[in-house]
Amino acid sequence: MRISLQFLRRQPLPGTQLQLAFRPRAVPAIWPLRSFTTTPPQARFVVHKQPKKPASKMSSTATTMKGQPLDKAVLDSMLRRRMFYTPSFEIYGGVSGLYDYGPPGCALQANIVDQWRKHFVLEEDMLEVDCSVLTPHEVLKTSGHVDKFADWMCKDPKNGEILRADHFVEDVLETRLKGDKEARGEKVEVKEEDPKKKKKKSKGAAEAVKLDDAIVKEYEEILAQIDNYNGEQLGALIKKYDLRNPATGVQPTPPVAFNLMFQTSIGPSSNMPGYLRPETAQGQFLNFQKLLEFNTQAMPFASASIGKSYRNEISPRAGLLRVREFLMAEIEHYVDPEGGKKHHRFHEVEDVELVLLDKHTQLSGQTTVKKMTIGEAVKTGLVDNETLGYFIARIHLFLKRIGVDQTKIRFRQHMANEMAHYACDCWDAELLTSSGWVECVGCADRSAYDLTVHAKKTGAPLIVRERLEVPKVIEEWTVELEKKKFGPHFKKDGKAVEAAILATSQEQLEKLVKELNETGKVVIDVPEVAGGKAEISKDLIKIEWTKRTENIREFTPNVIEPSFGIGRILYSLIEHNYWTRGTEGGDEARGVLSFPPTVAPTKVLIVPLSSNKDFAPHVRSLTQKLRSAGISSRVDDSSASIGKRYSRNDELGTPLGITIDFQTIQDKTVTLRDRDSTRQVRAEADKIIAAVHELVDGKKTWEEIEKELPIFEGQELEMR
Amino acid sequence: MRISLQFLRRQPLPGTQLQLAFRPRAVPAIWPLRSFTTTPPQARFVVHKQPKKPASKMSSTATTMKGQPLDKAVLDSMLRRRMFYTPSFEIYGGVSGLYDYGPPGCALQANIVDQWRKHFVLEEDMLEVDCSVLTPHEVLKTSGHVDKFADWMCKDPKNGEILRADHFVEDVLETRLKGDKEARGEKVEVKEEDPKKKKKKSKGAAEAVKLDDAIVKEYEEILAQIDNYNGEQLGALIKKYDLRNPATGVQPTPPVAFNLMFQTSIGPSSNMPGYLRPETAQGQFLNFQKLLEFNTQAMPFASASIGKSYRNEISPRAGLLRVREFLMAEIEHYVDPEGGKKHHRFHEVEDVELVLLDKHTQLSGQTTVKKMTIGEAVKTGLVDNETLGYFIARIHLFLKRIGVDQTKIRFRQHMANEMAHYACDCWDAELLTSSGWVECVGCADRSAYDLTVHAKKTGAPLIVRERLEVPKVIEEWTVELEKKKFGPHFKKDGKAVEAAILATSQEQLEKLVKELNETGKVVIDVPEVAGGKAEISKDLIKIEWTKRTENIREFTPNVIEPSFGIGRILYSLIEHNYWTRGTEGGDEARGVLSFPPTVAPTKVLIVPLSSNKDFAPHVRSLTQKLRSAGISSRVDDSSASIGKRYSRNDELGTPLGITIDFQTIQDKTVTLRDRDSTRQVRAEADKIIAAVHELVDGKKTWEEIEKELPIFEGQELEMR
Repeated sequence: MRISLQFLRRQPLPGTQLQLAFRPRAVPAIWPLRSFTTTPPQARFVVHKQPKKPASKMSSTATTMKGQPLDKAVLDSMLRRRMFYTPSFEIYGGVSGLYDYGPPGCALQANIVDQWRKHFVLEEDMLEVDCSVLTPHEVLKTSGHVDKFADWMCKDPKNGEILRADHFVEDVLETRLKGDKEARGEKVEVKEEDPKKKKKKSKGAAEAVKLDDAIVKEYEEILAQIDNYNGEQLGALIKKYDLRNPATGVQPTPPVAFNLMFQTSIGPSSNMPGYLRPETAQGQFLNFQKLLEFNTQAMPFASASIGKSYRNEISPRAGLLRVREFLMAEIEHYVDPEGGKKHHRFHEVEDVELVLLDKHTQLSGQTTVKKMTIGEAVKTGLVDNETLGYFIARIHLFLKRIGVDQTKIRFRQHMANEMAHYACDCWDAELLTSSGWVECVGCADRSAYDLTVHAKKTGAPLIVRERLEVPKVIEEWTVELEKKKFGPHFKKDGKAVEAAILATSQEQLEKLVKELNETGKVVIDVPEVAGGKAEISKDLIKIEWTKRTENIREFTPNVIEPSFGIGRILYSLIEHNYWTRGTEGGDEARGVLSFPPTVAPTKVLIVPLSSNKDFAPHVRSLTQKLRSAGISSRVDDSSASIGKRYSRNDELGTPLGITIDFQTIQDKTVTLRDRDSTRQVRAEADKIIAAVHELVDGKKTWEEIEKELPIFEGQELEMR
Repeated sequence: MRISLQFLRRQPLPGTQLQLAFRPRAVPAIWPLRSFTTTPPQARFVVHKQPKKPASKMSSTATTMKGQPLDKAVLDSMLRRRMFYTPSFEIYGGVSGLYDYGPPGCALQANIVDQWRKHFVLEEDMLEVDCSVLTPHEVLKTSGHVDKFADWMCKDPKNGEILRADHFVEDVLETRLKGDKEARGEKVEVKEEDPKKKKKKSKGAAEAVKLDDAIVKEYEEILAQIDNYNGEQLGALIKKYDLRNPATGVQPTPPVAFNLMFQTSIGPSSNMPGYLRPETAQGQFLNFQKLLEFNTQAMPFASASIGKSYRNEISPRAGLLRVREFLMAEIEHYVDPEGGKKHHRFHEVEDVELVLLDKHTQLSGQTTVKKMTIGEAVKTGLVDNETLGYFIARIHLFLKRIGVDQTKIRFRQHMANEMAHYACDCWDAELLTSSGWVECVGCADRSAYDLTVHAKKTGAPLIVRERLEVPKVIEEWTVELEKKKFGPHFKKDGKAVEAAILATSQEQLEKLVKELNETGKVVIDVPEVAGGKAEISKDLIKIEWTKRTENIREFTPNVIEPSFGIGRILYSLIEHNYWTRGTEGGDEARGVLSFPPTVAPTKVLIVPLSSNKDFAPHVRSLTQKLRSAGISSRVDDSSASIGKRYSRNDELGTPLGITIDFQTIQDKTVTLRDRDSTRQVRAEADKIIAAVHELVDGKKTWEEIEKELPIFEGQELEMR
């Protein structure tokens, strides 16, 4: 059995970016990992191998907000220094794939979630729920996760190292190809900025061994479809090409499936195996009936949930982009499958312009994107239906609202074989980062799959019962059997004959009624009885033209699911808003995070010029006024220079700074500094607070404030 | 080994309330369970057995917000109907101790958390962090949870039932005492309102068997200290009194310790055992160094965290009061242990009046509470220090702010043996509910314990380095050994002699220096060497009076920890704000949840009189205006009568309702209804929205609004 392609969709690990330079390939994305499929491997199309821009090239050309080359090492060091996030349990050596958010990361995350809740839940009256993370075995067995939510792994028999099979094959073949290139005297690209990689390289360094041209071609073909191999096939490749772990020089064991769910046991008797949920969706599906009831049976409606989910990655090494514990925000929008899945607010978004990479383009080996409105995309059938299109546009507007760079976002459509078999269309919002295009939001039409499997398993009626405005009149041929005589007549063949009659179509019945009227009996095919035919006389059967009225229609709603990985969005947002400011003295460039005020961890920095006690009442008064206006502020009364303190807060992404100096004591004026331009104005404290309010609410721009309040010049000189 | 008393502190299960009627005892609380102790069992004092008001009596006298008898069954049914919370995975049969929050519960929880964040984190510039739930073994081994975070359980060998040992002993003995009472013809109190309990009783029904007076006394003494037995002792009781599981008639197996943490394995190789954190605190402690650095080394400061924690309860049966997965909000305030732990904002709260149940009162067997200001409590030493007192007062103000009934809150002090051995004072905020007094917030002074054990284990310097304003001059006797000669002289005894010298006190050194000057040698006790004494001549040792200056002081800060169980607070808040309204027609009383607007799940209900299409634009306009004012609203355009729709929203705790009727179409006026009084005013939509704003912000009362806007009468007639 092949495990799903979806499960194998991975971000390139930092350590694999070097290799990526050698073959054009898609940057695989991993999230969300849910939409697995049961399509047999031979029927699948290799999705991720389309020649997109190679990731490593992207990485080296990754840019800051201002178009400067992005130095990832410098950014990482800044994020660590300012405690945006930090490896969990670091004083105990850390655990890969687990991160703690420090104060600015935590506030940034809270603000993104807050905007999400406003943009989706409140704006559309969604029913937010908070469901258990601990989930019993049976639920995830039914959903398919127990059987399919897995990666292939193998083990080095010598040193016990665990290897992800596809990554291992990929790494060894790429190393060999690199050695071949060296032997041929071709230039091998080496990334300068990652000292770790160099170290790693020395371990599995490529020997300059020239390969046959035919072998090079074979390797390249394998690499182009690496995500399409199942465990057995990966094992065969390891044997065939004698792939050895460079660390030990031995072949690893054959790949085995490793389920990515964290397992535990609920209750004291160990008889209830359970897992940490891999997604929030299942809890929402199980509550469907109650939510429909809560919504006074009105359709369509959506539930939403924000919470942690867990995936036991085999060897996570990509910072916040691949983690074992992560915050998700998911919407399950329930819609009637009939009537074309229209959305009553679609007109509000139809003019939203999107960058789309559709499946047809990808299937033809291209990555040329199309720019068009969502209205056009739905009209031309590129996007399957209005409701799906509505949410794609809403996702776009959300990402724009929180400050995602509009030139670094695209929606990529899943190709037929990439999607789960039950889904009818799926688009991912991908954001461009130094690791290439990262899947940050998935938006899938999941049809009625989940509700159907849970209903089937539990018997719970996860359906909508709709009173028909116009009752449905059904006219048709119906069959009635004279049971009392029928049974004794056919004896042991009774059931088979009855089943054969019930299986007859309306057309057949029309013929049978004619036969019955003409001959007084019908003869039908029943393969199970002797002779293969049964004769039924008219005293045993009645076939009549009947008419009945239905007032209620029952249906299982379809689910449109926008699913957000908050950590990935947060990290991409950081890169999109990062840039560096040169210094006159030729010092190291200073980092700035130009977050929009809505998501900035802190809105205002309050800086007293020195520790002079006369400043304290002014600091207190400002703090209190800002707090009662609901604007988050922080005081920095450390002994560092004003310039250094502002510099620190540029790195924290604080959009505004207020300085209290000796003039404040005399005339109650303070200065207000704009993070992005470093320009300042000076006015009375109350006027400044009013300006802050307008800036934070997005009602005025800094340029407008500069026209209203007197410019102040002087302090920025103390910058260093 | 006895497991900690703290671990045994439990809410009475609903099924045990009946028994509680027969002996006066404290209602044990369970949360937080952290502060375990290593004090040997014999040294411990039985804490929970003080004759407080018996829980069952409390339960039967539990009252609503308006002082009506609280019918818990009716309330529970309402909460379920309105989807405040619901058992998780119910269509799969459910899992005890796991609950999902539906839309109103989820919004109520979010609002409580939001208020918490404003009241604590923003108000005091705390450093909020979000740490991993998955925690490796070593961290929780060091913190003590791996060894001590356990309950005693035994198993019925016949039916395999798992029993919590202390609960089992308690249940059987209480059943016997009940049978004795019946045999003696004494009245046995039976609670009417719980049909489940009656059923349960029939299983383990008390036979009317009279016991010897001496046996009755023995049983009562055992019950009085049930929480004080360890597993072995509980096992001995089971044997001695032949306690049998009423379901099977057999004795259960001897008790074994059951660790309450959910275990899992991190990564693919199963070599990293881990747990789901039982509290958020450890993640905060491990980040201490980075947080101190983030805070520019300034002390005191606090970190804070809101997140889920997990405890694998043996058999949770008390609704939201005992669950396996729960939301916690914890603060770790780091304070210098020197200087009396003053708090610079203590003066702001010193007049806050509290209801205190101190340890001395409890130790004397009383539950008489004292009413006093926190200023007085700290001044008299009842509360250990200002910082602890400051947070106790702040907790009180928080609970008041979100709508906790001020007559149903008290702070109970832990007694010496109830506290963890490292804590120096601890107070719980307890809220009175139908299950008795429930511990909802703990506030402990945890001294330097956690930082010390983690620093010791990892070598990380979890300390504060403080530059001394006045450098400290230290004058003392110091010893210098002539190492070159010392070693060869003493040979194998060298180390022991050196250690003995280093261990000498300043007083001893003063004597030794005299001896050295007078005799040219010193003789000191060294038990390890032959003869027990060592002679050291003056060429080997120098003892001098020295003087040195220290500029830096290093210390491990103490931690004051306020720790909130959000689910328990949420449930208590529901009970405190619940009451019922009689109906004129004599119908069943209608439930109301009078939440303050700040925490109410939805602030405004918008009700169009009917489905008439002319109402739609007015509904839309109102919704948009409220949304842009940041006020959450919901539209109920179902076909139910206005009265029924208002009634539904009274149950949901929505404080305000706006009706759109035919007059609205004519003159753009709408009515505004007050949930608590059901009175209404009528005015133009914009005036009504302004009034809503003022009511929700708490700037005006309903009475004030009634004076400003015309009263409207009429609609409430349609109530049913």
